[in-house]
Amino acid sequence: MSLAKILVAQGGGPTAVINQSLVGVVLEARRQAGVAAVYGARHGVRGIVNEDFVDLAQETSHNLELVAMTPASALGSTRDKPDAAYCREIFTVLQAHGITHFFYIGGNDSSDTVRIVSEEAKAANYPLRCIHIPKTIDNDLVGNDHTPGYASAARFVAQAFAGANLDNAALPGVYVGVVMGRHAGFLTAAAALGKKFDDDGPHLIYVPERDFDTDQFLRDVKATHERFGRCVIAVSEGIHDASGAPMLSKLAGDLERDAHGNVQLSGTGALADLLCEEIKGKLGIKRVRGDTFGYLQRSFLGCVSDVDQREAREVGEKAVQCAFHGDRDGSVAIQRVGYYSVDYKLLPLSAVAGKTRTMEDVFINASGTDVTDAFRLYLRPLLGSGMPDAYRLRPNPVAKVLNRG
Amino acid sequence: MSLAKILVAQGGGPTAVINQSLVGVVLEARRQAGVAAVYGARHGVRGIVNEDFVDLAQETSHNLELVAMTPASALGSTRDKPDAAYCREIFTVLQAHGITHFFYIGGNDSSDTVRIVSEEAKAANYPLRCIHIPKTIDNDLVGNDHTPGYASAARFVAQAFAGANLDNAALPGVYVGVVMGRHAGFLTAAAALGKKFDDDGPHLIYVPERDFDTDQFLRDVKATHERFGRCVIAVSEGIHDASGAPMLSKLAGDLERDAHGNVQLSGTGALADLLCEEIKGKLGIKRVRGDTFGYLQRSFLGCVSDVDQREAREVGEKAVQCAFHGDRDGSVAIQRVGYYSVDYKLLPLSAVAGKTRTMEDVFINASGTDVTDAFRLYLRPLLGSGMPDAYRLRPNPVAKVLNRG
Repeated sequence: MSLAKILVAQGGGPTAVINQSLVGVVLEARRQAGVAAVYGARHGVRGIVNEDFVDLAQETSHNLELVAMTPASALGSTRDKPDAAYCREIFTVLQAHGITHFFYIGGNDSSDTVRIVSEEAKAANYPLRCIHIPKTIDNDLVGNDHTPGYASAARFVAQAFAGANLDNAALPGVYVGVVMGRHAGFLTAAAALGKKFDDDGPHLIYVPERDFDTDQFLRDVKATHERFGRCVIAVSEGIHDASGAPMLSKLAGDLERDAHGNVQLSGTGALADLLCEEIKGKLGIKRVRGDTFGYLQRSFLGCVSDVDQREAREVGEKAVQCAFHGDRDGSVAIQRVGYYSVDYKLLPLSAVAGKTRTMEDVFINASGTDVTDAFRLYLRPLLGSGMPDAYRLRPNPVAKVLNRG
Repeated sequence: MSLAKILVAQGGGPTAVINQSLVGVVLEARRQAGVAAVYGARHGVRGIVNEDFVDLAQETSHNLELVAMTPASALGSTRDKPDAAYCREIFTVLQAHGITHFFYIGGNDSSDTVRIVSEEAKAANYPLRCIHIPKTIDNDLVGNDHTPGYASAARFVAQAFAGANLDNAALPGVYVGVVMGRHAGFLTAAAALGKKFDDDGPHLIYVPERDFDTDQFLRDVKATHERFGRCVIAVSEGIHDASGAPMLSKLAGDLERDAHGNVQLSGTGALADLLCEEIKGKLGIKRVRGDTFGYLQRSFLGCVSDVDQREAREVGEKAVQCAFHGDRDGSVAIQRVGYYSVDYKLLPLSAVAGKTRTMEDVFINASGTDVTDAFRLYLRPLLGSGMPDAYRLRPNPVAKVLNRG
């Protein structure tokens, strides 16, 4: 029996629990018989090409447990998307190091990378077991009930809107919070879970699954502001008009594109500012404030769902079990059973790679500006234990004496 | 003995613990002998003028304890700054309701409101005990070691930068985080408490206490980026050039001003975007991202310092004790004793009202781009218990085989 050599890497945007998956792989791999090495590649596929490996068999299990609790990618990440030439470089390095098992933790771009590497390996007749481990705050992987990383980011968004609603109730006006999500509105929709009382915000939620119409938006805001004297709005960064053009592209200037050809949406407050200007200018409302949640929602240290942590750990562990006790490459996927528990399946890479899940119609209400109870029921258990709650004074009005008003 | 009638209100920007002070006032007032009523004014001084009162003697102590744990101003707040005419309106209402004790929880604008009300009451020979209770995330009240609300916001900023640093280490580039603070850099400086390892960010911190020079800023960023391959930067929204002009005013467009004549700095991502454009354009660094912490840093539900909670409760309680067992109006102030404990003093309103504390020189290092150990020692105990910590993998490099690099 030839000895196994493991390589694990992390790709794409970091999450609060991606290191749980890493540690799940490492600890489970170290428990397997016949494993000669457990390597980690620094900064994803780029670290493979550069032979930038660390020996994870020499890391204490105690420190691994502490790293698991730390957000962002402990091995470093990359936005590189390997083409065939890039993959040949990868194989050269993998062969040179005698790697037999490749685990890549990432989103749909990363799953596509795993698919290409897997196919190139087969074409080159190189024996390599390739397993993709899901991760993305966007929750946009097909074949998964939800993805590790989403729940913690969703919790941040829910807590942020719960707080923003309280602030807005204290100093009334219009508040626009822009949330990550290019094609899928799952993370923005999580804002709805910050609402407790009937008149609480977010009062309006805009996701990329519905075309954004500025005139309708202004009518929605006006009606809400007239009804409640204030308005809290959650907006996906990826909202677009009926032609599919991002609302952000209405702004002047060069829009940065990444290696995947995507316009840079995050890391700028432009969309929130644009929407605020529209509201101020067209509706004449004076106090209008916009926040862009930016990197806080995926990297904030200290806001995490314990359910998310547990599942992220398990998908890593499960990936190793699939690799050592299964006979095919694939992508580990989370399936929901009961209310609430999960099971894991190994899907074909081609079923997941490069595909994008968006919010199902059943999760979005008829007006397109709120979620449904089906979505609330879907998300609630993912947020985990210890969700903070908001309380208010009960109305006990004192009779007026002067009555001048 | 005439019966006392209490009125309490909340002014200015909400904080994570301002309701602790409210509840401290209410519960302590309800324990005093001879108190006929405990009223709360909705939305600060505006609620007084409008006779918009709630009866806080009819609120259960259990719900009050839950409200105390809830961020933002449970009574509502206002940005109104009363002039003499406004104060005459206040007196008319106070007299009509027979109010004998007025407690106003707020920052330096609110303390000035209390001072004016107190002086107008004396001039009108109206018997009114006026006590200002400190509150501000800016930590800019003179005569206080620190202010309730600051510690929780500082904790948010520290945790946010700890996370942003991890994210930036995983996907290297330049990250700019803009933090609230018009004149005082205390909150921005809290970013330094998110740093653990020597090469962690924030690598550069810019506060309004030092003039901002764009050329020097770009040299700082370039040098840091060359040294670490990345750069995490904390910037106060109030940074200004040597002439005192806000850096934000370099942007075109109308700048909104509030009732106090202050330019609107919060609720827009413009400063972060401006700085990112400078770095991209002048230094040619490709991955540059900016976040504006905005309202998240003062209203996020679920990030609070337990030390801050306790002290905010105590200043409210202490205010009632000063009012019932003292003989003068004033502002309750926090004094530090030992390491770490606090005591409370009643300062003359004129000593606090309308004055702005900024960071002492001993807290800012010689280069003006970092804090000193004195500041770290000052802030550390305020952040409270249970601060999350970040861990990293230890370096165990694997020898290269191909060595092509």
